[in-house]
Order: sequence, then C-alpha cells, then structure tokens
Amino acid sequence: MHHMKEMIATHPDVKGSTNDALIRCLEECYSCAQTCTSCADACLAEEMVAQLRQCIRLNLDCADICLAAGSLGTRRTGSNEQALVAALQACAIACGLCAEECEKHASMHEHCRICAEHCRRCEQACNEAVQSIR
Amino acid sequence: MHHMKEMIATHPDVKGSTNDALIRCLEECYSCAQTCTSCADACLAEEMVAQLRQCIRLNLDCADICLAAGSLGTRRTGSNEQALVAALQACAIACGLCAEECEKHASMHEHCRICAEHCRRCEQACNEAVQSIR
Amino acid sequence: MHHMKEMIATHPDVKGSTNDALIRCLEECYSCAQTCTSCADACLAEEMVAQLRQCIRLNLDCADICLAAGSLGTRRTGSNEQALVAALQACAIACGLCAEECEKHASMHEHCRICAEHCRRCEQACNEAVQSIR
Amino acid sequence: MHHMKEMIATHPDVKGSTNDALIRCLEECYSCAQTCTSCADACLAEEMVAQLRQCIRLNLDCADICLAAGSLGTRRTGSNEQALVAALQACAIACGLCAEECEKHASMHEHCRICAEHCRRCEQACNEAVQSIR
Repeated sequence: MHHMKEMIATHPDVKGSTNDALIRCLEECYSCAQTCTSCADACLAEEMVAQLRQCIRLNLDCADICLAAGSLGTRRTGSNEQALVAALQACAIACGLCAEECEKHASMHEHCRICAEHCRRCEQACNEAVQSIR
Repeated sequence: MHHMKEMIATHPDVKGSTNDALIRCLEECYSCAQTCTSCADACLAEEMVAQLRQCIRLNLDCADICLAAGSLGTRRTGSNEQALVAALQACAIACGLCAEECEKHASMHEHCRICAEHCRRCEQACNEAVQSIR
Repeated sequence: MHHMKEMIATHPDVKGSTNDALIRCLEECYSCAQTCTSCADACLAEEMVAQLRQCIRLNLDCADICLAAGSLGTRRTGSNEQALVAALQACAIACGLCAEECEKHASMHEHCRICAEHCRRCEQACNEAVQSIR
Repeated sequence: MHHMKEMIATHPDVKGSTNDALIRCLEECYSCAQTCTSCADACLAEEMVAQLRQCIRLNLDCADICLAAGSLGTRRTGSNEQALVAALQACAIACGLCAEECEKHASMHEHCRICAEHCRRCEQACNEAVQSIR
C-alpha cells in the first residue's frame, strides 16, 4: 500500500476509509514542490539565466503553494473544507502557470520538461481532489 | 519607513512605486503565521486541549497558507497575479475560519482572543490586497 | 530511475553525476515531513490527546525542519555546504527526538509506529548525507 | 508590548515569564525570511543576474531555515531544546553565509545592503538565543 494512504488510513477519524483522490493529490503536491525547487535551482545555473527569471519565480511560487496545499490536505477535517478547496484551487492555478512557462523551455532544458510534466500531473490531481471533496 | 516597504522599494521592477495595500498584507501574513503557530502551541498546553482540537488544526492551516501567500506576494511579478490572487483568497478564507473558531474561546484563553483579532486583520488585509491587484 | 535522481541529474552543475546519499536523504526529508504532519493530526484526533501533546509538538518540529533541510539539499551548491550540514544535523536530531517519543505510543497507535520508523529512516539518511558531503 | 512577547506571555506553560532573547530571535527569524525572499526576487530582476546566482541561492536557503527556526522557537517546550539549539545554530550559519555574500553587492544593490544588515542582526539574535537556552 502506498505511503500516505497507509499513514492516513490509521487516523482515528478516517478508520480505513480514505479519499484516494485527495491522497494522490497530497503526494503530487509534496513531490511537485521538490521538483519545482530543483527546477528553480537548475534554471539559476543555466547560462541563459536572464531568460529564465520568470520560470524561476513561477517555480518558487508553485513550490510554496504546493507545500501549503499538501499540509492542509494532510490535516483534512470536516470543517476546513472551504480553506482546503481554496488552497487546492490556488495550487492548480500555480501549477498551470508554472507548467505553461516550463513548457516554453522544455526542448532546451530537460529539467523544465520534467517539471512541466510534473506540474500538469499535480494540477490535474488538485482539480480531481476538489471534485472529490465538494 | 516600514521594513518591507523599504525593502520592496529597492526592487529593480518597482523603482520606489510600491503597492502599499499588498505590502501591508504581506506583513500581516507573516506575522499572522507566527501568531497562529503560537496559538496552536498554547492551545495544546491547555488543560481542556480535547475541546481545542479544531482550533489547533485551523491555527496550523492558517499558519501554512499565510506563509505561502506571504511568499507569493513578496515575489509579485506581472504574470503570477492569477496565482497570487487565488493564494490571497485562500488565505482570507483560512484566516476567517481560524478567527471564527478562536472567537469561541476568546473569553477563556487570552491567546485565542489575540489570535482571533490578528486573523481578522489579516483577512481584511488579504481582501484589500486582492482589490488592489485586480 | 527515481524521481529526484532523474531531476537532479539534469542540473547544469551536476551533469549526471549525482550524490545518491544526499538524494535519498532529500526524498526521506520531504516524505518524513508528510508523515509527521499526518501523525500530528492523527494524535490530535485520539481520545487520549492530553497524553500526546509532546508527540504532536515534536511531530510539528520535525516536519518543519525536514522541509527546510530538504529544500537546502535540493539547492546544494558548492558554497552552502556549511549551512546544509548544519541543517541536516538539526534534522537528524529532530527526527531522533520525534522517533523516541512516537516509539512510546507505537503499540497503541499505528500512526505513531509508522511515524517512528519513518523518522528513524530519515535520521539515518541525514547522517549518511552529512558523511557524503564532508 | 511587542507582538510576539504579548502572545507568548499568554501560553499556559509560560505564565508571563518569557525568554526575551528567544522572542527577539523569533521575530528576527520571521522577518529575515521575508527580507531574504524579497532580496532573492530583487536579485533575479537585476540586469547582472548571472553574477547574483549564489546570492539568490543563499537568500533562499536562509529564508527556509529562518522559517523553520522561527517555528521551532515559537513551539519551545522543555524537551525540544536539543533540536531547537541545532536549528538556531544552522540558522545563524545560513544568516552568516547570506550576509557575507550580500555584503559583496551592498554598494551596488540597496536590497543586498539591507538584507546583509538584516542577516547579521538575525545571526546575532540566534547566537544570543542559543546562549539563553543552554
């Protein structure tokens, strides 16, 4: 069984009945934060860094909101749904913007190609999690 | 001149012309994150901790989203406005939920009274920052 | 190939020659942060929450320092080694303290059992990463 | 009375008797995180960004460890002292490295000058907080 599913299944309020769309989303959020942090640092090391400023910023924004959305989702309880949904929606938007920017450099920079794909996966996982909660 | 205003005024893209509603919001976000982290820990130390579970969770949620919103706002650039607005809206919601919960315990716990007031200030500052960006 | 290894291998300064002990450590850090955030919330939902206060605090401390160590490690560059080593050492200490506390409740709470194991893995990975850098 | 001092004084375990060196340190940590996040973004916008790569990285490292140290310090309890001291020491190191780098650009970039000063203040506050705890 997957790591976060195993963990969340032991929560006293959950009792084994997990929301799998949300759990998949949490894992994408934490791991997308890592990828974006890594892509920002790789962009910063590229010779053409001056053309990657916006990419670096959107990477950093995406990493920050991914971690916040991941934490809120991990603490999901009945009554934070309104904040959780808003955080997941903000995360989907940040992932979409970051993916769009990374896609422009995907043919030149392998880290941007991987990051764009990851952001698209996370964007979709956030949207599906929002559907599953509402 | 205030700390973040002085700092952001030196940004090459800003050239002294700062968005004061946004800067006030950033300062509220970072400082509300601190207050909420502190309130969560104080609630945890109360004898009646079992009745403060929801307050602790909402404090932690609020702290996480405040920090993310503060970081995105600090990196404000033309093209992350869509993500920034969504993050500020999520932050306003989390602040509102946390304030509502803390207000229930405000007469018994001074930390909840202070925290509720702080969350209301941050909620309003986020809403005003959203107005100033759009 | 594993997710972060694939990503970091594309960094212009790395050119495919990755530090595998550090990469394994980064993955443990991010994923231990998730586990600790989840354990804190599960502890908070337990009937005996009053006896789990210290566990919740150490979970939250561990999550915070794990994320910071993970981010610094992801941005590893020649000249932040001194800060990175200090962050990994702080992370190993926080993981050790959290594991020790969770182990006390491991027979009663499955989430504490999983979390203790995870913290021990992350503690060891941090120590090995420190060895690999120095 | 200052914001965090007022808040922490209400904690049931503290009962008004606050550690002022630690509280000053927490405030420096959160506010230094903001300054470093802002300096990273300003550096990224400079024409000579290619010469500021290391500054940006150290800014980001410093911001991450400052927030972690600030959170641990806010949750100070008897038994996390070992982790807290290690986190504050890591923070002092990161602040020192960031200050050293920013000082190199202080005459050209006002944001680096302010950031260097702020990092030095935070470095000192961390060292004094460590002394006060041990």
